[in-house]
Amino acid sequence: MANMPEQEQTAANARDDKASSTQQKGRAAAATAPDFSGAFSSGGIVISVDAMGGDRGPAAVLDGVALAARGNPSLHFLVHGREAELVPLVKARKLKDRVTIRHAEDVVTMHDKPSAVMRSGKGTSMWSTIEAVRNKEAQVAVSCGNTGALMAVSMLRLRKMPGVDRPAIASFWPSKNPSGYNVMLDMGADVRADAVDLLTYALMGASYARNALGLTRPRVGLLNVGTEEHKGNAELKAAHELITDAAQNGDFTFVGFVEGNDLPGTRVDVIVTDGFTGNIALKTGEGTAKFAGELMREAFTSGIMAKLGAFLAMRALKKLKAKIDPRRANGGVFLGLNGTVVKSHGGADGTGVAAAIDLAARLGGLGFVDRLAARVALASAAGQDSAKHEAGDETKK
Amino acid sequence: MANMPEQEQTAANARDDKASSTQQKGRAAAATAPDFSGAFSSGGIVISVDAMGGDRGPAAVLDGVALAARGNPSLHFLVHGREAELVPLVKARKLKDRVTIRHAEDVVTMHDKPSAVMRSGKGTSMWSTIEAVRNKEAQVAVSCGNTGALMAVSMLRLRKMPGVDRPAIASFWPSKNPSGYNVMLDMGADVRADAVDLLTYALMGASYARNALGLTRPRVGLLNVGTEEHKGNAELKAAHELITDAAQNGDFTFVGFVEGNDLPGTRVDVIVTDGFTGNIALKTGEGTAKFAGELMREAFTSGIMAKLGAFLAMRALKKLKAKIDPRRANGGVFLGLNGTVVKSHGGADGTGVAAAIDLAARLGGLGFVDRLAARVALASAAGQDSAKHEAGDETKK
Repeated sequence: MANMPEQEQTAANARDDKASSTQQKGRAAAATAPDFSGAFSSGGIVISVDAMGGDRGPAAVLDGVALAARGNPSLHFLVHGREAELVPLVKARKLKDRVTIRHAEDVVTMHDKPSAVMRSGKGTSMWSTIEAVRNKEAQVAVSCGNTGALMAVSMLRLRKMPGVDRPAIASFWPSKNPSGYNVMLDMGADVRADAVDLLTYALMGASYARNALGLTRPRVGLLNVGTEEHKGNAELKAAHELITDAAQNGDFTFVGFVEGNDLPGTRVDVIVTDGFTGNIALKTGEGTAKFAGELMREAFTSGIMAKLGAFLAMRALKKLKAKIDPRRANGGVFLGLNGTVVKSHGGADGTGVAAAIDLAARLGGLGFVDRLAARVALASAAGQDSAKHEAGDETKK
Repeated sequence: MANMPEQEQTAANARDDKASSTQQKGRAAAATAPDFSGAFSSGGIVISVDAMGGDRGPAAVLDGVALAARGNPSLHFLVHGREAELVPLVKARKLKDRVTIRHAEDVVTMHDKPSAVMRSGKGTSMWSTIEAVRNKEAQVAVSCGNTGALMAVSMLRLRKMPGVDRPAIASFWPSKNPSGYNVMLDMGADVRADAVDLLTYALMGASYARNALGLTRPRVGLLNVGTEEHKGNAELKAAHELITDAAQNGDFTFVGFVEGNDLPGTRVDVIVTDGFTGNIALKTGEGTAKFAGELMREAFTSGIMAKLGAFLAMRALKKLKAKIDPRRANGGVFLGLNGTVVKSHGGADGTGVAAAIDLAARLGGLGFVDRLAARVALASAAGQDSAKHEAGDETKK
């Protein structure tokens, strides 16, 4: 908790007081006895992990669990999936003391439609994974499964946080900032976002950057086709005004509009956009980086001198590769629900899954979901106050 | 004309027949005598060049003119700007026989608002540059100036092509396809686009790819957040249907939805999107490529072995750099106006300006604007036929 800015703690405490009655209710509603109730109450962290649904199957997920467990002795895991498949995997990795298996017969595939999973997904490992967070048996959920279905099940079972109309997916974007990353949202939870949603994204993104990156006062930018205030559509101009107002009490700095080339830059820490644009930007960035890497590889195998050069520079190239390894920044976080869910890349291997679990552990340890809720509640209250104030002014006329 | 696909010729001829009366009118309206009327009628190409308004001033533009003039003896230039500045630049580059200077006192800066330039930009070099295309003194215009102002002046003076509601800016995107490039539009002419606009972009993009890249049957994709047909917003789903129908008679293949990572890939030749998304993707790609380049440079200067490696691989690295040199693909083309306008990057040097002029020369030599108009007219006619057909069906009921 050393990295936690003080104002964030205060906000979290404020929220904790208010939220205690609902939390008690939530705990009472947990039908099955928590496996790590001791761990949970003594400050240990329980992570609910969906072992199925990733491209590489449960073995890769359990590799990730083993890596994360080795790195952090205070972690415990609820692992959901087919028991017969999971028991030998857990045994082989000597994880019996750290893992409890929750049997779930069904698996959500990448081709399942979110609506179908919402209707008839109760028997799936994904559903069971989210249910453990809902029942307060685990602080955070991690899944490599189908993003649309995971968001749908999370919305259905965890419900939206008060004050949030559209939840968002936040991702890390490699950048030149000291932490090595910027935060960007929404990466595709919803293709639309109105001005109020974009304001909510700014608040949530700032809170996420404070907690996940340890920044005291994140700089937030709104993605547009130019930095001048007259650029963009009406929704963006309205959002610009709303975020400007909110920044005054929000412990973040609003730098205004930013452009696509600012995503890896040092002008901002948090980039706010709608889920359509965010998803296009994410995949364009990934595609460009991959293309650049392929051209690089071609160049270094194009002749004897080039090959020799690559051999000599191998250590530097390996360091570079590790620095931009997408597995290190694996984990899109769902923001705006009553519970934290980390979406790992579908194709993640053990290293990727471990990175997603580490992120989940960090957020769980900080009580992030309560802090985020407190931030959103404070902003909603301020918005209502100023709305009342304006209404008061109106009646005076 | 060797690269011109046959069907494109036929379409162009069809249009030429229909368009001849309006063209005569346009030619008669040319008030001043063309400087290269001989060149123009004998198949030579006259390019109207805005010498002012780029970040590097008129010297860089004239460097580009000199490079392009050396590479292509059939080119003549109408160069617009302050005569006192331009005369010595033309003289120093020994371009007197190839260039006619058109004096224009005013310059559009990067900060001028498009609306202001439309109202009072008559005395600017940008206005004069477009006017020469309007008056049929030149086949194509090239400018490094303010994009918004250039589009506004081009719309005002050249007018939209019949059947086009929103003109678009098309750019080359470095790709793994044999030509080395894909075509993408709209890159920011308009932040909005409805389903019919996206259809028009598909037709215009396909025509542009046929002419500029020499592809017989370009593959067109519609940019979305997933490739499944249920993804995206209502506008995209409607555009998907319209483009599917148009592809049957359009000499292009519609591959359906594509994603951000397909931009540099081999699945498509033409990527269609609205100007907001296109601009964000363009700048995200540029930013990512620049970031990757910087990390590369850091890696190769990080130690003695790395430096030695870089030295040995220098030839390969230089080849790579040349391959991805953004100056080589310089030139966004305005599509959907009664005249072709090439927008060079504002920061272009001589090499960049020359690339934009080469592209302009190619399009001018092919009579691209008439071909494009024929394509759009054919598609509109087909659309009206099928609308009539449907209406007929309706009345039968």
